[in-house]
Amino acid sequence: MVLIFHERVGLDGRRISPFSWRIRYALAHKGLDPDVVPTRFADVARIRALSGQDLVPIIEDDGYVVHDSWSIACHLEDRYPDRPSLFGGAAGRGAARLINVWSDTVLGRAMRPQIYADFIRCIDPGDRAYFRRSRETQLGMTLEQYSADRDAALPAALAVCAPLERTLSEQQFVAGGAPAYVDYIIFSVFQWARIGSPRDVLADATTMNATREWRARMVAMHGGLGDRFAGYPIDTA
Amino acid sequence: MVLIFHERVGLDGRRISPFSWRIRYALAHKGLDPDVVPTRFADVARIRALSGQDLVPIIEDDGYVVHDSWSIACHLEDRYPDRPSLFGGAAGRGAARLINVWSDTVLGRAMRPQIYADFIRCIDPGDRAYFRRSRETQLGMTLEQYSADRDAALPAALAVCAPLERTLSEQQFVAGGAPAYVDYIIFSVFQWARIGSPRDVLADATTMNATREWRARMVAMHGGLGDRFAGYPIDTA
Repeated sequence: MVLIFHERVGLDGRRISPFSWRIRYALAHKGLDPDVVPTRFADVARIRALSGQDLVPIIEDDGYVVHDSWSIACHLEDRYPDRPSLFGGAAGRGAARLINVWSDTVLGRAMRPQIYADFIRCIDPGDRAYFRRSRETQLGMTLEQYSADRDAALPAALAVCAPLERTLSEQQFVAGGAPAYVDYIIFSVFQWARIGSPRDVLADATTMNATREWRARMVAMHGGLGDRFAGYPIDTA
Repeated sequence: MVLIFHERVGLDGRRISPFSWRIRYALAHKGLDPDVVPTRFADVARIRALSGQDLVPIIEDDGYVVHDSWSIACHLEDRYPDRPSLFGGAAGRGAARLINVWSDTVLGRAMRPQIYADFIRCIDPGDRAYFRRSRETQLGMTLEQYSADRDAALPAALAVCAPLERTLSEQQFVAGGAPAYVDYIIFSVFQWARIGSPRDVLADATTMNATREWRARMVAMHGGLGDRFAGYPIDTA
């Protein structure tokens, strides 16, 4: 079996993509140890030739080429059914899809202005011009303008997390008593925020204690996977 | 086995509670046919004596008295494990809890001003003074004031549903290929809105086609359960 994981990397090998993070956790959950191909934004020609589109993560699995993190998670679940389940069955997979969409479009968007002006410094220097240009075109403003009001916007961003906080005050993981892909989905957004900025969005949030403790459990699991790579580049800024 | 379902009712036996609706669907899903005790707000002394708190739904199941819709769903799942599963396993139950909290606190609150000024006419005439007083105290304004800007607020309420719409454009039910408790949770909010107002919140929403079609599937299932009781009292208003 040849299993290859094309994973987004930034400055000095930092793992900067929430979508790659959720697949990294999913692979660990399944006990799979792929060959990792660190992938910069500059590697887009290779990615396009491989998959017909521009984004990572991508999994190459014995001839299958699967892109899009949700499709990869489903592929891993279906191809390795005898390993620990990512979804816990069909109903769990269905519900996970709603949580996936919510996480990407609501939670992720709420967190993005909290980190984006800092995040550029996690990008490989050779990718920064591309990253800034593409994101600023999409946003219609500079990264710094986009993040300028982040302190004022933080309470609203955390309000988006209120259902998560309440759920985690009742159970150890989003998936209940043990972590599953729904945890990896949501954690990946907080991990992106954690690595992408020196300012912890949960640091002063007294209303987010359960989420902060869950995040620590998520960082620590799978052999401390959340701390395996370098964090925000404070000293090299 | 004696199974009793204390269910909230309004004018002429209308079923007016989203929390009772999700339990009604859960019972049908499990193939359980309880004795139903229609329960008005005025019946609070009986409910308090039975359960030590004021709210329905309540299930009495062979000596167990269980209140709170989430607790009832878990009770039914654990007590009738050989009947069709409401959660599809532990991970599905965990994820359903997050969706339950989101549905009650985010979706439900977004929909409430869309219907509240109309909803009073679904309440039993003998309960209306209590309903109005308790809700207006909670809201700090009249029901009519609370719903006054509902047309302007509708796009924001539907924006809350965007992750649901996208999910349902990809799969038939929230739980995937077949309905489960996560569907009943979210449907109960739309059913409450559907019965509680003559104005369909999804009527003109061209961006909510998948949700509207799913709602119709939900109304039709379990023998047309969603249409078993009277709708909004247009003619008696």
